[in-house]
Amino acid sequence: MDLDLSADGATLTAALVDFASVSGEEKPLADAIERALTALPHLAVRRAGNTVVARTALGRAERVVLAGHVDTVPHAANFPSQFDSERSKLSGVGTTDMKSGIAVQLRLAYSLPEPSRDVTYVFYDCEEVEAERNGLYLLSRSDPGLLAGDFAVLLEPSGGAVEGGCQGTLRAAITVRGARAHTARSWMGKNAIHAAGDVLDVLRSWEPRKPVVDGLEYHEGLNAVAVSGGIAGNVVPDECVVTVNYRFAPDKSAADAEAYIRELFAPWEVSVLDVAPGARPGLTAPAAASFVAAVGGTPRAKLGWTDVARFAELGIPAVNYGPGISEIAHTPGEYVEVPAIQACEQRLAAWLS
Amino acid sequence: MDLDLSADGATLTAALVDFASVSGEEKPLADAIERALTALPHLAVRRAGNTVVARTALGRAERVVLAGHVDTVPHAANFPSQFDSERSKLSGVGTTDMKSGIAVQLRLAYSLPEPSRDVTYVFYDCEEVEAERNGLYLLSRSDPGLLAGDFAVLLEPSGGAVEGGCQGTLRAAITVRGARAHTARSWMGKNAIHAAGDVLDVLRSWEPRKPVVDGLEYHEGLNAVAVSGGIAGNVVPDECVVTVNYRFAPDKSAADAEAYIRELFAPWEVSVLDVAPGARPGLTAPAAASFVAAVGGTPRAKLGWTDVARFAELGIPAVNYGPGISEIAHTPGEYVEVPAIQACEQRLAAWLS
Repeated sequence: MDLDLSADGATLTAALVDFASVSGEEKPLADAIERALTALPHLAVRRAGNTVVARTALGRAERVVLAGHVDTVPHAANFPSQFDSERSKLSGVGTTDMKSGIAVQLRLAYSLPEPSRDVTYVFYDCEEVEAERNGLYLLSRSDPGLLAGDFAVLLEPSGGAVEGGCQGTLRAAITVRGARAHTARSWMGKNAIHAAGDVLDVLRSWEPRKPVVDGLEYHEGLNAVAVSGGIAGNVVPDECVVTVNYRFAPDKSAADAEAYIRELFAPWEVSVLDVAPGARPGLTAPAAASFVAAVGGTPRAKLGWTDVARFAELGIPAVNYGPGISEIAHTPGEYVEVPAIQACEQRLAAWLS
Repeated sequence: MDLDLSADGATLTAALVDFASVSGEEKPLADAIERALTALPHLAVRRAGNTVVARTALGRAERVVLAGHVDTVPHAANFPSQFDSERSKLSGVGTTDMKSGIAVQLRLAYSLPEPSRDVTYVFYDCEEVEAERNGLYLLSRSDPGLLAGDFAVLLEPSGGAVEGGCQGTLRAAITVRGARAHTARSWMGKNAIHAAGDVLDVLRSWEPRKPVVDGLEYHEGLNAVAVSGGIAGNVVPDECVVTVNYRFAPDKSAADAEAYIRELFAPWEVSVLDVAPGARPGLTAPAAASFVAAVGGTPRAKLGWTDVARFAELGIPAVNYGPGISEIAHTPGEYVEVPAIQACEQRLAAWLS
């Protein structure tokens, strides 16, 4: 099935949603995107796995990157897509996260043969799964030159606002030790689950930092995301593990975050499981400032981790700006508002014209 | 292989240990015990599964039951048995729990053709596993008359002291609820693991009761034996379950214990997983008092749950009295002291002569 890039953004979003593309199964959709873009003479198209990159080469003074992932989370009885009776809302898996953003990218690629800035359009796979499979990550390693630019926009759901930077995320296992004993003589041992109450006390009394970074207010979080312990129904357990997830503002590096967590949980064994740095919003960079001025609205901080951090690693300022609504991403009732798709396309087109 | 009941208690213990009989695999040992006892004309032998019962029928005014389990926990590089160089200690799986006690039962059955009280010797299987497989439990349901008596002695490890009664045991799952959210916006949810800190606070501040029951001091215990919670590394969890084990003194019934736990954890969902009542020591009953006077020493409370509770259910006063050492039961270094086997046999023989 071919994609019709001359259709309006909402119609194109519905067509994209109806190409099932759960992570790992993006090939048919990537093929259709590649075919549609290859037909446009003003774009040079490259393919790597199921990631498609299309670039103008007009010799403009600035190059910007518009990027989005084509995969979705698994279906939850919300496939295929469905418009409401007024055609003001489109429901279905990936409508908000983020095929409406992909539709905007494709509409701009189609309708702007001579943008005022050179544009690199990136359509990548496997964003919803482990980082090692992420198409943008793989491309940033195999062919970073294809991602070069002065500024990047990720069309992730942001409710039509500019969301700057992102918070980092760290997971660590806190292991509390005790001593085994039979529960009939529990005073011979030391209960590690009871002792883990001290770890929970740290979490319960923790006050989130809300630093302002480059003008945007972030909001940190520290949560137990798992707890496990226990040997048998008649044994005082000698080990309890609390896994915590620390979401840290982008004024802290990954190393800062790790040091902070090790200090906070110093009485116990701390094992860092993974860490992904955040990204400063960088809205003071000239390319970013002109983007914000062009699309309007008040920028706000992005709290979740997104692939803007990958652009930050490559030294490219990046923001999230897309028609979807982040709060309903990954829910069975996911939808996108049709006017938001049109507004996003119009504002980006104005910026690039 | 046949058992030689004319050998001394330590030699017989070693022979019994060297019949591997992990729970469920007692048949060869039960066969050997049945053969050895059937050869003794003063005993009537009955078999039910891998449980063997042998009885004198001398028409005495009193009948006592001597009982022990023939199974062991799984081997832990402690098989077969081994004497130390002075032959003062015998090491190996089941030496203390409780083949030394089984050896004493067999020695008494062999050497006392005309005891002063009629004796029922019970050798049963599957004590170390779930209650529904326990040979004594099954016999108490299928043929309780075979267990009839005025008094019972379980030759469980008790360090050569009389241990009276036993504490009950109850397990319950305490479920703490919260509300899911993405950890990047954790304040949108309610972390159930953090909230479980309140359950751990109850456990940490709990003061054990130490009631005196029929002259013996018990010592209760309340412990978390398992904790679990967590959905994914980026999700605020909406459920955390703490499993607790309450060991309660025998002045409380199973219903009392359940009511107490439901009250203590009233703010949360409480699901009782299993409960086994304790048994009062009953040392004031005439048969028990004469036993204590005969074997000497100061009786103490049994804190763990044992099969004396089954005799209590049948209305038969019962105590634990055996040569093993309860503190090292189920450990890889399990052993029994040779003089303790002899002393136990001699004192019981004196009581029954």
